Amino acid sequence: MPNMRIVVVGGTAAGPKAAARAKRLNQGAEVILIQKAPELSMASCGYPYYVSGDVAARDQLLSTPAGVVRDPLFFAGAKGVKALVNAEVTGVDPKAKTVTFRKAAGGPETLEYDKLILCTGSTPRVPPFPGVGLEGIFTLHSMSDADVLRAVGAGAAGKNAVVAGGGLIGMETCEALAACGMNVTVVEKLPNILAFLDPELSMLVENHARAKGVRVVTGMGVAGFEGADGRVSAVRLEDGSSLPCDLAVVALGVAPNVGLARDAGLAIGATGGIAVDEHMRTSDPDIYAAGDCVEVTCRLTGGKTLAPYGDLANLEGRVAGENAALGDKAVFPGTIHSGICKVFDLAAGATGLSERRARQAGYDVVTAVNASPDKPGFMGAKLLVSKMIADAGTGRILGFQCVGAGEVNRQVAEAAVAVMAGLTVEEAGMADLPYAPPFSLAIDHFIATAHVLDNKMRGLFAGESCIEVRRGLDEGREQYFLDVRGPKEFEEMRLGVGETLIPLGQLRNRLDELPADKGARIVAYCKVSMRGYEAQRILEGRGYDNVVVMEGGIMAWPFGREK
Amino acid sequence: MPNMRIVVVGGTAAGPKAAARAKRLNQGAEVILIQKAPELSMASCGYPYYVSGDVAARDQLLSTPAGVVRDPLFFAGAKGVKALVNAEVTGVDPKAKTVTFRKAAGGPETLEYDKLILCTGSTPRVPPFPGVGLEGIFTLHSMSDADVLRAVGAGAAGKNAVVAGGGLIGMETCEALAACGMNVTVVEKLPNILAFLDPELSMLVENHARAKGVRVVTGMGVAGFEGADGRVSAVRLEDGSSLPCDLAVVALGVAPNVGLARDAGLAIGATGGIAVDEHMRTSDPDIYAAGDCVEVTCRLTGGKTLAPYGDLANLEGRVAGENAALGDKAVFPGTIHSGICKVFDLAAGATGLSERRARQAGYDVVTAVNASPDKPGFMGAKLLVSKMIADAGTGRILGFQCVGAGEVNRQVAEAAVAVMAGLTVEEAGMADLPYAPPFSLAIDHFIATAHVLDNKMRGLFAGESCIEVRRGLDEGREQYFLDVRGPKEFEEMRLGVGETLIPLGQLRNRLDELPADKGARIVAYCKVSMRGYEAQRILEGRGYDNVVVMEGGIMAWPFGREK
Repeated sequence: MPNMRIVVVGGTAAGPKAAARAKRLNQGAEVILIQKAPELSMASCGYPYYVSGDVAARDQLLSTPAGVVRDPLFFAGAKGVKALVNAEVTGVDPKAKTVTFRKAAGGPETLEYDKLILCTGSTPRVPPFPGVGLEGIFTLHSMSDADVLRAVGAGAAGKNAVVAGGGLIGMETCEALAACGMNVTVVEKLPNILAFLDPELSMLVENHARAKGVRVVTGMGVAGFEGADGRVSAVRLEDGSSLPCDLAVVALGVAPNVGLARDAGLAIGATGGIAVDEHMRTSDPDIYAAGDCVEVTCRLTGGKTLAPYGDLANLEGRVAGENAALGDKAVFPGTIHSGICKVFDLAAGATGLSERRARQAGYDVVTAVNASPDKPGFMGAKLLVSKMIADAGTGRILGFQCVGAGEVNRQVAEAAVAVMAGLTVEEAGMADLPYAPPFSLAIDHFIATAHVLDNKMRGLFAGESCIEVRRGLDEGREQYFLDVRGPKEFEEMRLGVGETLIPLGQLRNRLDELPADKGARIVAYCKVSMRGYEAQRILEGRGYDNVVVMEGGIMAWPFGREK
Repeated sequence: MPNMRIVVVGGTAAGPKAAARAKRLNQGAEVILIQKAPELSMASCGYPYYVSGDVAARDQLLSTPAGVVRDPLFFAGAKGVKALVNAEVTGVDPKAKTVTFRKAAGGPETLEYDKLILCTGSTPRVPPFPGVGLEGIFTLHSMSDADVLRAVGAGAAGKNAVVAGGGLIGMETCEALAACGMNVTVVEKLPNILAFLDPELSMLVENHARAKGVRVVTGMGVAGFEGADGRVSAVRLEDGSSLPCDLAVVALGVAPNVGLARDAGLAIGATGGIAVDEHMRTSDPDIYAAGDCVEVTCRLTGGKTLAPYGDLANLEGRVAGENAALGDKAVFPGTIHSGICKVFDLAAGATGLSERRARQAGYDVVTAVNASPDKPGFMGAKLLVSKMIADAGTGRILGFQCVGAGEVNRQVAEAAVAVMAGLTVEEAGMADLPYAPPFSLAIDHFIATAHVLDNKMRGLFAGESCIEVRRGLDEGREQYFLDVRGPKEFEEMRLGVGETLIPLGQLRNRLDELPADKGARIVAYCKVSMRGYEAQRILEGRGYDNVVVMEGGIMAWPFGREK
């Protein structure tokens, strides 16, 4: 005779975690998991790699590390959880404490619960575009979506695809379709792709995608779809132009599934997600919710936000499961917006607030962009370009972004802990991190980035964003471009903006070649930033008082260059 | 006319950093760097990879990322620092504020300073073993050491080498010599190699080195060297046995070079390093010190410690240089003992205190070992085995260690920030880290390790170290070994300790096969730990009250197994 019955609705990420945790902590409970799809506990973040063929077998997305498929038999045996699949919950009655559901071929059934956990997930946002019902228009959100897109992609080499939306899923899908041999165009309505990055970094990713043969259209939304014989033949853009295509994927984000919760009278937050407290409890004391369907707290602003990420779903499910089983002890503290994605040979990651988001939240921010290798050159260094965002008043790190072919993963992970712990730029600059040449530089890139920002905050480093420098160029601002790299580097590649080359090592002896006016604006730069910074300090030591360093140097310059 | 003169003694890591920083911040200063060796700013942590041939060219260790050799010409031009090489400082007179030095072929010269920065480094500890003067006995500490060992190694395939000391440098040297085709024996006096790890993890590294053909002798010190014709022919061990060899490397740690400081009357700390305050200032107000020659504060215990690492040398040099130039503003907060090294296909890293070190410091500690993959199986997962150490009272994370073929680097870096920030196990368990399948699991290994320890601290997870389990076996303790993996896994490999296999999925229906006595000690385990934990919870739910889970499962079992 069970001591309680816990019903969990939803079986992808948060649901299975909540169910398993609840049962582990209360072996006397009966735990029932109701899942609409045929599969359980799918590794949904792996779908793009299944579409591309990188994941060879479907079962790999559905199995434990030991190779056992996570089906109802597995859940019963290993987890002690009764899992129903192909079963859709159609209603919740909080007063009677029942859920009503319907199996694939059956009438409605009703189940009583002591505690209920809603993990109803999310649905891709597909606006009611003209032609949206045409064949050949897909989303990539469910296992069946992935099955369909993989099958389509397998025979699509040479065909044209348009991905509407340049966010995380959009860029992962873009790469997957390109791996299938398709000609891919990504269309993003915002000025840049990957909105968790500020433009300095997202433009670098755009350039990389273009170098991989992808067409990237930004600042332009999709207006609709054109078709022939019921099949999509083109994507129409807001400017009236059309992109011919054989298939299109809509990746414009997801919306929380809150229908059940709303119909049951549970509070829905202003963001559109189910409102929960820090224990993941809804407005009904016996109903918890977790995963894509809820809104959570942003740990930096204190505000509510939607954070539909697989890792958070697991943590939230863990908390909901524990509290349903044992009472409200466990706390989910919220998100700091950490994320990462692979875009061809680059990784792009971020944690905390972007500059844009921090300013929106009312912070007075200082930022710096830094470019440096992830390891010593003799160990096969790869470049990283990062941006650190801090509160001007306290120096607290609010956010960190990193893009590059190097080990972005470590950088963003250590930065995430720093942001979460509330470290200041100065504290990060004195971190004692693991160092050996196969793994990092003696001064790790994250620490170096903190040094750059710390120097800037103290008025030692006069850094300026490449975007600001570009704006000056576009506006015809009077400025003297001083490239302080070596002649060989200059010959191989340069900005081509009328710059003067004076290698840093010669600068002290060639000051007479600079503008005589000590107040002239001089933009110094090198490949990354270090030599540019040295040049600034030298010139200031000689009385120049309007010298800036272009942050990140040529490697962070996302605009055209001369080669 | 310079506004001040700053003299820096020592040109490897801390010295060049201090000199360059001082000049950058005070362009009016004259900065003079005096270096004993012919080279400057050597990437000394790269020496093992130069010996092995992984670093193709010598200049790679001596050049900037742009390929410019960091010689006196470079320092003059790019850094504005006057660097003297082959120049040995022989005395410091703090009253007269002078240093006396001697160039390669010259008499003594004297130089006045306003501020002095001592970066005199360290020297390998080579005890006065009998036979220590024989040819063929090396250290790997200087560029010339590296040159010699590389030349010797290049023709040494098939020859026998003994490395005395199984610390970081010893294991890196071991790998380098093995890469030269030598038969390598590592001799470590302590019970295990890599003393920054606790035995659970260091034994895994030992096993890996053995699998790579290295002989690892532990718990046995070197007693001396035997020779023939003035050349080493064997290493004699403390038990009287001998290891025949063609060459030997002594890697028994380093001692700070404090002769100049001591002779000048500066305070030397109890650890043997130059005593400095948080500004890196010595007992003389005009003399700073940084790098291997100083003792620094352990941020966890508050005590003084020697921390001769290249990354810290750079941070210390940066602080010393700034304070010498601008006055005592910058602070070096100390070390948390972060380190990492590559040992063949594994990485081994640690941060904070080991269990042993934490207990020595008086902490009441709780620990857990966790084994799990770094990424999803479908993305090419590799195993990680970690140990987390926390203060039992507060839950504060004191240390974290990780060993594996997977991405140890990210794990230890994020843990280092957590330790530095004083996060608790519970806080770490709710971290929001960057996640995507190419980079990590949905629940990152570090978070999962925190979950294991949190469950253990709350009495939910009855984990026990494999060492404790092994001790029970050795002592003939009555215990029932319950392997809950699948039959195929069992057939491929098992402990072979008289265990019973009951796959987890069948356990609930096969409880009658277990000991009838509900108080019987049952040791449950699986490949890693998760299924073992489920088994524990199931059995406790049925009244068994003496069930433990072997932490890290079979993957963390460092003793013999049946295959």
